[in-house]
Amino acid sequence: MIRFSRSVNAMQSSAVRELMKVASDPDVISFAGGMPNPDLFPVGELDEIYASLSLKDKQNGFQYGPTPGYPPLLESLREYLRAKGLPVDRNDLIVTAGSLQAINLTAKVFVDAGDSIVTETPCFVGAISVFKFYQAELRGVPINEGGVLIPELDKALNGVHPTPKILYLTPYFHNPAGIVYGPERQRQVLNLLHHRGDVVLIEDDAYGELYFEERDRPVPMKAMADDSVPVCYTGSFSKIFGPGMRLGWLLAPRDVVRKCELAKQGVDACSSTFTQVLADAFLRRGMLSGYLKRLREAYARRAKRMLDSLEAHMPKSVKWTVPRGGFYIWVQLPSVMDASELLEKSVRRGTVFVVGKAFDPQGKKNDCLRLSFSHTPEDKIDEGIRKIAEAVREKRQ
Amino acid sequence: MIRFSRSVNAMQSSAVRELMKVASDPDVISFAGGMPNPDLFPVGELDEIYASLSLKDKQNGFQYGPTPGYPPLLESLREYLRAKGLPVDRNDLIVTAGSLQAINLTAKVFVDAGDSIVTETPCFVGAISVFKFYQAELRGVPINEGGVLIPELDKALNGVHPTPKILYLTPYFHNPAGIVYGPERQRQVLNLLHHRGDVVLIEDDAYGELYFEERDRPVPMKAMADDSVPVCYTGSFSKIFGPGMRLGWLLAPRDVVRKCELAKQGVDACSSTFTQVLADAFLRRGMLSGYLKRLREAYARRAKRMLDSLEAHMPKSVKWTVPRGGFYIWVQLPSVMDASELLEKSVRRGTVFVVGKAFDPQGKKNDCLRLSFSHTPEDKIDEGIRKIAEAVREKRQ
Repeated sequence: MIRFSRSVNAMQSSAVRELMKVASDPDVISFAGGMPNPDLFPVGELDEIYASLSLKDKQNGFQYGPTPGYPPLLESLREYLRAKGLPVDRNDLIVTAGSLQAINLTAKVFVDAGDSIVTETPCFVGAISVFKFYQAELRGVPINEGGVLIPELDKALNGVHPTPKILYLTPYFHNPAGIVYGPERQRQVLNLLHHRGDVVLIEDDAYGELYFEERDRPVPMKAMADDSVPVCYTGSFSKIFGPGMRLGWLLAPRDVVRKCELAKQGVDACSSTFTQVLADAFLRRGMLSGYLKRLREAYARRAKRMLDSLEAHMPKSVKWTVPRGGFYIWVQLPSVMDASELLEKSVRRGTVFVVGKAFDPQGKKNDCLRLSFSHTPEDKIDEGIRKIAEAVREKRQ
Repeated sequence: MIRFSRSVNAMQSSAVRELMKVASDPDVISFAGGMPNPDLFPVGELDEIYASLSLKDKQNGFQYGPTPGYPPLLESLREYLRAKGLPVDRNDLIVTAGSLQAINLTAKVFVDAGDSIVTETPCFVGAISVFKFYQAELRGVPINEGGVLIPELDKALNGVHPTPKILYLTPYFHNPAGIVYGPERQRQVLNLLHHRGDVVLIEDDAYGELYFEERDRPVPMKAMADDSVPVCYTGSFSKIFGPGMRLGWLLAPRDVVRKCELAKQGVDACSSTFTQVLADAFLRRGMLSGYLKRLREAYARRAKRMLDSLEAHMPKSVKWTVPRGGFYIWVQLPSVMDASELLEKSVRRGTVFVVGKAFDPQGKKNDCLRLSFSHTPEDKIDEGIRKIAEAVREKRQ
């Protein structure tokens, strides 16, 4: 008889992935996936990059690369991060397979089975998967429009034994909540971590470049913190180039990165050199800033369209966040309503979204849902929201 | 104070990776890396593929793909594996980041800390890293020119408690030993596993396509076994397309693949879709067979060159395997000699290789070394071997 490991019991299929089967039906209007819009991918830039590659570049792309990353990409990435004010020279950088792998490697080097991790509620579903992979105990702390609630965070970090190993936050254009931390809240978080070092902050900045207005451009906590706070800053090419490249990064204290590098040797040896060659050319040829301008305009327009539709169709009892960047709107249903029941009614009408409990570290809280405005054909947004609103009304009768 | 996980203590820097710093010096003749020769990469084919990609193909390449793999690649890969006689329809297939990740996911779903795994001695160094990542206990079984020694394997599987969870073998053009299992040895291995199911066989076939003569084309055990033996068959595009693509696969019983898919959701969500689009086109356009023909001829020629040089320069007390495929020759030194000391003397002469203990699951046995003939400039092979021979002679005085 096959004897699986104990840890497989902790792994569950992500609700988001399961839903993708329904969402991929072309007749269904899907607000479910956190995918970029394919029409926005920089295909023209890619053609230009490919045409410019030398024989040597292509041979490098076919070959193994060093575990921490393709050296030219590490160089251009350092330049990019330095320009964001990040302390590149007092930390080390490693290229990962998306920011998900950066979170995974960090968890690997800190977490033993049974250790606890503090997250926001709601929390990025991929991070929940990672932490369960390592059999961590998750403690969720509620958030409001301005970020994690400080008294509750204080309690989660200081009121329980043993002290959590990791605090995981997605402060900028939060997935799924769509919110962004202001500078005051950032400072309060850092104050709780100041001069202790026993709690590592994973600052997940996958969406930070996708602000709609210049005034909402985030300054990462990694750029604000002094070295007494171990901040593991993760980022991704998934939202600023393409997720199919599977490239992200971790900027963290040297001894953390060194251990992540050792772990990565037993995970995949290195990330794809081929896509690293492409990403390096994309940065080096200065293509990112023009591309980001296009993305910000497109996603801002889509967000506005969805907000207008919510305003027009939803009953007054339904509330939602107003995003200033990113891909998501978080919808709060009346507390008697269950998002899974609403999803069933919505699917019958041909529209899907992700239910709230997928993002709850405890897998329970379900009076809320995530709408993604990134991927749906723009002219279908209003129709889809109208159908969900009809489903809400049916429910309430 | 930063509190790392207990598992980081089990992670060590691979001796191979460390050596790469020396090996990358252009004045050093390196037989160290297990890298394909860059001049052999199918750059012409890649240009042809890129030129043929549609806008839709490129958009797909930029986007997330399903966790088990890009559907067109899964289809062309199934076709390829079916043609090798593998039971594709009674098993499931998942695309991984190299075969290293296939081994990693399999270990994840079977191994709890302290479980034991049986390997060959010597053993692929990447697999040793993976198994240590999950804090497994390793038991090595010696091999000879025809494969693992059956009485010793029997003892390792049946003579100890608790029974090992996994038997990991690299039967075809072994890394580092360069040997290949014959059909009789394959059957003896399968007999030991027949009708028990408590031991999973990982059959690592990263090099199977690189036979030098048609008569040495391997038939995998996965194709020979009945369903009573759970065989997890792993393979890789690293040696037949390029390691920089980071693509491999696992063909295994459905419930194993299903669990590996769940694990992969928390590892990297999916492998690079971009490189999967390229690999699919490579298979689908029938480019593989012509490319393999070129590779087999080139590596056979390089192997012969190294064998001739060994014959010409080495003292009689040094023995080596005669590879019939793959990248490696395994050298047995006189038992009084230590490969690390020999490496020091060789480095001073400008030549490097990997010492035997890197491939010993216990990290000790060091009267042997691995020479790779895949990557060194062909006209440097003789000079490099001559220098090592000189170092051997110096040692013996």
